Amino acid sequence: MTPTQYRTGCALNYNVIGESAFIFNVSAINNEFQKVLSESFSTNPAILVTESRAPMEEKRLHRFQAESGSLQLCYEALVELSHYRQTPDQVPQIPPAELPPDVLPYIYPSRYCESDKLTRLALYEFGNFPTGFSQVTAICNYVRDNIEYLPGSTCQSTSAHNTVTERTGVCRDFSHLAIAFCRALSIPARFVSGYAIDLNPPDFHAHFEAYLGGRWYIFDPTRLSPQTSFVRIGTGRDAADTSFATIFGNVQFLSMKVTMEYVSGPRPEFTTDAISTSQLIS
Amino acid sequence: MTPTQYRTGCALNYNVIGESAFIFNVSAINNEFQKVLSESFSTNPAILVTESRAPMEEKRLHRFQAESGSLQLCYEALVELSHYRQTPDQVPQIPPAELPPDVLPYIYPSRYCESDKLTRLALYEFGNFPTGFSQVTAICNYVRDNIEYLPGSTCQSTSAHNTVTERTGVCRDFSHLAIAFCRALSIPARFVSGYAIDLNPPDFHAHFEAYLGGRWYIFDPTRLSPQTSFVRIGTGRDAADTSFATIFGNVQFLSMKVTMEYVSGPRPEFTTDAISTSQLIS
Amino acid sequence: MTPTQYRTGCALNYNVIGESAFIFNVSAINNEFQKVLSESFSTNPAILVTESRAPMEEKRLHRFQAESGSLQLCYEALVELSHYRQTPDQVPQIPPAELPPDVLPYIYPSRYCESDKLTRLALYEFGNFPTGFSQVTAICNYVRDNIEYLPGSTCQSTSAHNTVTERTGVCRDFSHLAIAFCRALSIPARFVSGYAIDLNPPDFHAHFEAYLGGRWYIFDPTRLSPQTSFVRIGTGRDAADTSFATIFGNVQFLSMKVTMEYVSGPRPEFTTDAISTSQLIS
Amino acid sequence: MTPTQYRTGCALNYNVIGESAFIFNVSAINNEFQKVLSESFSTNPAILVTESRAPMEEKRLHRFQAESGSLQLCYEALVELSHYRQTPDQVPQIPPAELPPDVLPYIYPSRYCESDKLTRLALYEFGNFPTGFSQVTAICNYVRDNIEYLPGSTCQSTSAHNTVTERTGVCRDFSHLAIAFCRALSIPARFVSGYAIDLNPPDFHAHFEAYLGGRWYIFDPTRLSPQTSFVRIGTGRDAADTSFATIFGNVQFLSMKVTMEYVSGPRPEFTTDAISTSQLIS
Repeated sequence: MTPTQYRTGCALNYNVIGESAFIFNVSAINNEFQKVLSESFSTNPAILVTESRAPMEEKRLHRFQAESGSLQLCYEALVELSHYRQTPDQVPQIPPAELPPDVLPYIYPSRYCESDKLTRLALYEFGNFPTGFSQVTAICNYVRDNIEYLPGSTCQSTSAHNTVTERTGVCRDFSHLAIAFCRALSIPARFVSGYAIDLNPPDFHAHFEAYLGGRWYIFDPTRLSPQTSFVRIGTGRDAADTSFATIFGNVQFLSMKVTMEYVSGPRPEFTTDAISTSQLIS
Repeated sequence: MTPTQYRTGCALNYNVIGESAFIFNVSAINNEFQKVLSESFSTNPAILVTESRAPMEEKRLHRFQAESGSLQLCYEALVELSHYRQTPDQVPQIPPAELPPDVLPYIYPSRYCESDKLTRLALYEFGNFPTGFSQVTAICNYVRDNIEYLPGSTCQSTSAHNTVTERTGVCRDFSHLAIAFCRALSIPARFVSGYAIDLNPPDFHAHFEAYLGGRWYIFDPTRLSPQTSFVRIGTGRDAADTSFATIFGNVQFLSMKVTMEYVSGPRPEFTTDAISTSQLIS
Repeated sequence: MTPTQYRTGCALNYNVIGESAFIFNVSAINNEFQKVLSESFSTNPAILVTESRAPMEEKRLHRFQAESGSLQLCYEALVELSHYRQTPDQVPQIPPAELPPDVLPYIYPSRYCESDKLTRLALYEFGNFPTGFSQVTAICNYVRDNIEYLPGSTCQSTSAHNTVTERTGVCRDFSHLAIAFCRALSIPARFVSGYAIDLNPPDFHAHFEAYLGGRWYIFDPTRLSPQTSFVRIGTGRDAADTSFATIFGNVQFLSMKVTMEYVSGPRPEFTTDAISTSQLIS
Repeated sequence: MTPTQYRTGCALNYNVIGESAFIFNVSAINNEFQKVLSESFSTNPAILVTESRAPMEEKRLHRFQAESGSLQLCYEALVELSHYRQTPDQVPQIPPAELPPDVLPYIYPSRYCESDKLTRLALYEFGNFPTGFSQVTAICNYVRDNIEYLPGSTCQSTSAHNTVTERTGVCRDFSHLAIAFCRALSIPARFVSGYAIDLNPPDFHAHFEAYLGGRWYIFDPTRLSPQTSFVRIGTGRDAADTSFATIFGNVQFLSMKVTMEYVSGPRPEFTTDAISTSQLIS
């Protein structure tokens, strides 16, 4: 299949009040299905930036120190995406006893996905669905039908346990709740931060992956952007693992601009197929 | 209508480790629909007990000091119950602007009924039901269908906000959740502690009342005991207002026995009628 | 003692989107120590307003229906304040067994003052202070020293249990936390909304009262305004009982202006005396 | 330095009600400072057990399926321990900008260590201590002085945010709270499950490690067992990463016996030195 190319990136503006350290996690990773054809990571004023990569391509970090004054960070990349596709009925749940060791951490609760508190609710709502891809789809349908997408209604400390009662949120909250339901049913699930097309207004996006049929498959309970356009930045247990910027010091956030545009290849599409952009775990 | 008579009461055993003060709220109140024909409140060893009554017959309190040693409290009463009955379709919601001042406190959140956190959920689940008696019945059905009655699964600090996600509880938790949903929909609702027949094992019971059609009507989401048998002890915003025993000092709870038996008159019955045992607010 | 006169009030502006019902609780109450010499409560456009008073002068409510369109509410009052004064060492804690029935509700936890969750912390921090006025003063000192006064850092759902860990808040949060600590030590405590002088920017204020030595005494952990200037609006278990506006309908809040100025008599002063503005409970 | 040898292990008894899958994490890991000289992992009835190891020796997992009936798991090991020692004033905090990528995940909040909610409290209580080993020691002192060690007072869902207000807990809760405080101050901190000597009654133990001066150093706010005796089982962000048993199915826990005894070499000791049993991160 011909891959699709996208141009994506972000510009972030800060007012640095005292010398501060920054860790950014905004760069697209490379794997079998996502190739960064070209990219630039720059700051204004120019600062020496160190890059480090987490094992297993979970994320790339850019770190630097900045003096007082205004600071702009600018990331741009040309990325090529392809996908592994499967028909949903070929994507069964893996019995817990057979889950690979690398996948096991994703069945346990995390900061924003308190699956241990939602076990009975998950069993009540989803316990009677056939297991596998369609059960996770039922979870996504529930989240989309029960939670109102309402920018500004939640904050940094909002978790799945809050969202399930307060009933509002943004992409991050939608994914946290769906992940918590999956784990409550012993389905490994993890959080992915990224870029996505057609968001209005343009912004970073978040979706999640469930481990089914021997792979991590993509799910997005918001249904706001075609899944085939998702450019992966960071992968982790929840948003605590994938924050775009970790800042040590006294810094004021001023503004942000995120861009994502189609360049060439097959057009992005909403699909009911099972699609994956994670490399097989050996 | 001939009233029904019940014999009810409790025996509570403590080990008092240092001089302690007790406030008990286990006595049946008197009103237009509930007459205490005879009763005794005694302690062993015998102690001078002071009784005080809250305004508007919300509850009766028995207070005393006890020295170190074993302590038994014994309450027995012969109570006569009658009811105001109405057909459900004659029991409409009262517009908030027309609620009597005495009723208004019961639309606000309280310790165990955080209605402010459940507004969207209440609107989502019950917003499309016709208002009035049938909407509160829908709330009770939801609670009974979604929450598992599981003694020992909850504790003193469990609130409606916990119950709605954890999905287990006892009569107290069932009522707290239903009250929170009512208040979230601007329906005044309050908690009632009491005695009830046919509980297995015998125990204190809790139900709630919603203010509809100009009266406080009885609802019990547990459906474990016929509503016409409920003997009212205390009325308040939630269980914080109606605890059976408030103890100041170092005291060990040993055991409890609650009794409730039918004596004479019409047999207790489950009913789908709207019934009330609260005096009209003048 | 000559009383002090203040002119106080508020103007609240709304955009009413559909027909809505309002309940306002912004009027000064009358009691032995606080006399409303003159006042006006008006709306623009003019609407028929109903007033009701809660028993025991806990608060006065103004209610009305408003049609779509802009709505202004304007309250102005000339109020005369005096105080009961006592030296702190004459203000002992009342043994729980001797608390009047009307006071008892204020030892139990409420929505924003979860004293049941803070018992050990309260005993650890304040258990070794001498009981009475100085112990409550120790609580106020702790709150002022540990919590940063930071407007905008908290919201409607913030409770004492949040504040004690998050360590920021406004006057409402300061009082909620102090109340929770008092109740955890079996000291009755309640919330008071009101007007106060010298606030910058001018705003409604909140303080609390502890029941000691047979009276409700004033405490304000914020120390932002002289206690002798406090004009009482509403009294209750916490902010859930004293919200300035309860609105049923689709209404947009636009702006608010609160005024409070000294007119005549002894100047307001910060005091370390025990002062009370509550009528003796008979 | 001559290493010390310990014999340790556990016996766990279950009643398996339907076919179930088990993942155990009770085996001692091997690294530069901890050598498993001999060990056995057995079940009764005998079942084929699969072992997998997490990368970087974080933990070893034993997995198997069991049929209905009684099940006993028995683990025994002879382990040899040595330590890296350093004087506390040679153990400085590492500036966040210089933390190795493998260490970074441990500055973010996790399920039981909500450091994001305790930032102000941590700064208030510990911000004025000199950074490095002595600041983490101050955190341990605070936890030991403020939290009562009270078996049975907490449960599986108890987190640092609960413990800091409820003020009781066991070793797991003590470590969670200390970890949360460290992370709130940008000190990487992680949870370690293990065996330890002289616990009364014998039980699994938990301590934590803070990343200082280029190594993970051991801290134990409970002070219940000499740090040099700690045998490492699992390492992770919090107890969610290191549960002794993860069970899929209907299984009843019956009883548990943990053993740990000194065999030979230098006697275990409480020490105020900085000691480490983690291999250097390359």
